[in-house]
Amino acid sequence: MPILTLTTDFGTKDGFVGTLKGVIWSICPEAQIADISHEIAPQNVLEGALALWRAYPFFPTGTVHVAVVDPGVGTERRPIAACMAGQFFVGPDNGLFTPMYEDARRNGWGLEIVQLTNTSYFLPNVSRTFHGRDIFSPVAAHLARGVSFGDLGPPVTDPVRIQLLRPQRTAEGWQAHVTVIDVFGNLTTDLPAAEVLGREQPVFRLRGREVPGLSESYGHGKAGDLIALVDSENHVEIAIVNGSAAQALGARVGDAVEVVFV
Amino acid sequence: MPILTLTTDFGTKDGFVGTLKGVIWSICPEAQIADISHEIAPQNVLEGALALWRAYPFFPTGTVHVAVVDPGVGTERRPIAACMAGQFFVGPDNGLFTPMYEDARRNGWGLEIVQLTNTSYFLPNVSRTFHGRDIFSPVAAHLARGVSFGDLGPPVTDPVRIQLLRPQRTAEGWQAHVTVIDVFGNLTTDLPAAEVLGREQPVFRLRGREVPGLSESYGHGKAGDLIALVDSENHVEIAIVNGSAAQALGARVGDAVEVVFV
Amino acid sequence: MPILTLTTDFGTKDGFVGTLKGVIWSICPEAQIADISHEIAPQNVLEGALALWRAYPFFPTGTVHVAVVDPGVGTERRPIAACMAGQFFVGPDNGLFTPMYEDARRNGWGLEIVQLTNTSYFLPNVSRTFHGRDIFSPVAAHLARGVSFGDLGPPVTDPVRIQLLRPQRTAEGWQAHVTVIDVFGNLTTDLPAAEVLGREQPVFRLRGREVPGLSESYGHGKAGDLIALVDSENHVEIAIVNGSAAQALGARVGDAVEVVFV
Repeated sequence: MPILTLTTDFGTKDGFVGTLKGVIWSICPEAQIADISHEIAPQNVLEGALALWRAYPFFPTGTVHVAVVDPGVGTERRPIAACMAGQFFVGPDNGLFTPMYEDARRNGWGLEIVQLTNTSYFLPNVSRTFHGRDIFSPVAAHLARGVSFGDLGPPVTDPVRIQLLRPQRTAEGWQAHVTVIDVFGNLTTDLPAAEVLGREQPVFRLRGREVPGLSESYGHGKAGDLIALVDSENHVEIAIVNGSAAQALGARVGDAVEVVFV
Repeated sequence: MPILTLTTDFGTKDGFVGTLKGVIWSICPEAQIADISHEIAPQNVLEGALALWRAYPFFPTGTVHVAVVDPGVGTERRPIAACMAGQFFVGPDNGLFTPMYEDARRNGWGLEIVQLTNTSYFLPNVSRTFHGRDIFSPVAAHLARGVSFGDLGPPVTDPVRIQLLRPQRTAEGWQAHVTVIDVFGNLTTDLPAAEVLGREQPVFRLRGREVPGLSESYGHGKAGDLIALVDSENHVEIAIVNGSAAQALGARVGDAVEVVFV
Repeated sequence: MPILTLTTDFGTKDGFVGTLKGVIWSICPEAQIADISHEIAPQNVLEGALALWRAYPFFPTGTVHVAVVDPGVGTERRPIAACMAGQFFVGPDNGLFTPMYEDARRNGWGLEIVQLTNTSYFLPNVSRTFHGRDIFSPVAAHLARGVSFGDLGPPVTDPVRIQLLRPQRTAEGWQAHVTVIDVFGNLTTDLPAAEVLGREQPVFRLRGREVPGLSESYGHGKAGDLIALVDSENHVEIAIVNGSAAQALGARVGDAVEVVFV
């Protein structure tokens, strides 16, 4: 059964997401469609990129991911599709797929990108403001039905990339960053846990607070404790047991997290 | 594969939408179900009607749309189903389907409406407060499985209609209205773009602000510019490039938008 | 077609729910998946338990329900699956399934519970913080594909239970409680309607207000009336016609509702 996913900044109130599903099922009625998120902050390409990046590895080969965070809709920015690790990514060429390109580079996977120029896979009327409906969803549905990737348009060799935060080594350890704040107020950082596991006494500093050492899980502290632990993606996470670290610390995405080995 | 959609004011917190899907899949396990919106303002029939109206044209022939914005549940208001343009609409007879009736009239499409009286397609126990679960969802699932439309109940010739806003001609141009405010704060109006395209120098006035001319897309202005453009439904839309026109202008649904040709 | 449901406190912004669907469809691509709620208050096991309890009776035999409200993730709390009334429930052993256990007891249904120890049905790498993804979703997908329940692990005879609110008889009638506040601000109580139907003149008191008698439906009062009626689960509900009782009364889940027969 073909599987598609949707990642947008459309919200769920106005019916736009339902419209995308109507378009997809008109072309590929048997498609399974998973909503990754429709609450990406409006036009925040980085946030959309990271949401899709966290989810895509858990989808099977052949999955087609549609992502639409698209401040440049209606301008000359290219509509594209990428093929990588047996999965497809369809959306605007504005950097939304940068973390996936990085995964391909780091892992030595093949990466092909095409510009969507074959209008026979678009809706008959293409608006200037809703390419998610008129271009990306129908192209994705045709891909899910088995249309050949190369048939979508000519290769793209210079896709737009956005800047991703990265942890930096310092004299005493690392300077890392808060990359995600989840619904519980847990603070995910960009520091791979491998950099601190097995080291004696790492100390984490953010927003004037200090967290000594790594805990085993949320359940291994007392309610209210500020702890550091390994998150589900094997990065260091800062959390408050049964509470919201984001709220208690006033933390925001992008905040510096210093790591020192004492 | 049968396709159904759901449009309600239930919210997504309490599990009511999940319950509807359980009812539908108990009858028609292979149905694809798209959520149009569950965040219609409580009991706002007009808002629900417009959300469904924007989405339905993108669904394939045979789709069954369930809509439940139902202040009169448990009173004598009739439960109905409508058949139009090869699609089905199931819900309370309170005007929710008025824009679809208008489409049928304007386009000369056939329109049949029946009252849901055949209780063999209801759940065995019908509550007084949750007809979405007990009547509309099971009837829709039976329709999706192939039950004959005429078997649901007797014809209705006097369905309830609600008042829809309409743009009015004025001496200098048009008086239009804000009909939708989307998640970006863009203001959709009820003025067909055809009325201003090709005219010299249309000027749009709302909330004491003036917008000269039509822009090609969001990307054709500077951040912060207040612009008018053609939206994805071919109506005039007022927007702020990379910002929220709704917030900047304090605009609300129903606001007057004057159009003057200078 | 196999049917699964999801009930979590993950929210819908961060993409975690999409990830669960990717895991499920990687194992069982034809599964239908219904979201019950992802807006359970963080770590509120009782709220999650009640949301699932209201919805499960409307799902068909064979449905697999995944519930993840899991403050103890990563500690020794057991991962379990329960089988009851032909349906399956997969999640942490922290009381989330208590109302279902109660239904089984009250109705004399068989109830089997196993501890999830057979790691061949888990994802290959199990994190300490995201068992919804790594244990519960894959186990549920394997169940949906037909894996034998007994193959998941050894029996559990002492599942954790949480305290459920219950109405108490008083000298003059009942002391009941607000159990759910829905999106309309209607207040569901735990008092079965059977206890007041047919009784002369029940009076309901909460938050200093008094409601005389039962109304037939929302539509049988004037806008603004505070009324009591029978809800869709056959419990007494307190509502304001075309308004929010929760807002007008400042009501909260757990509030006492006195019932007196005068």
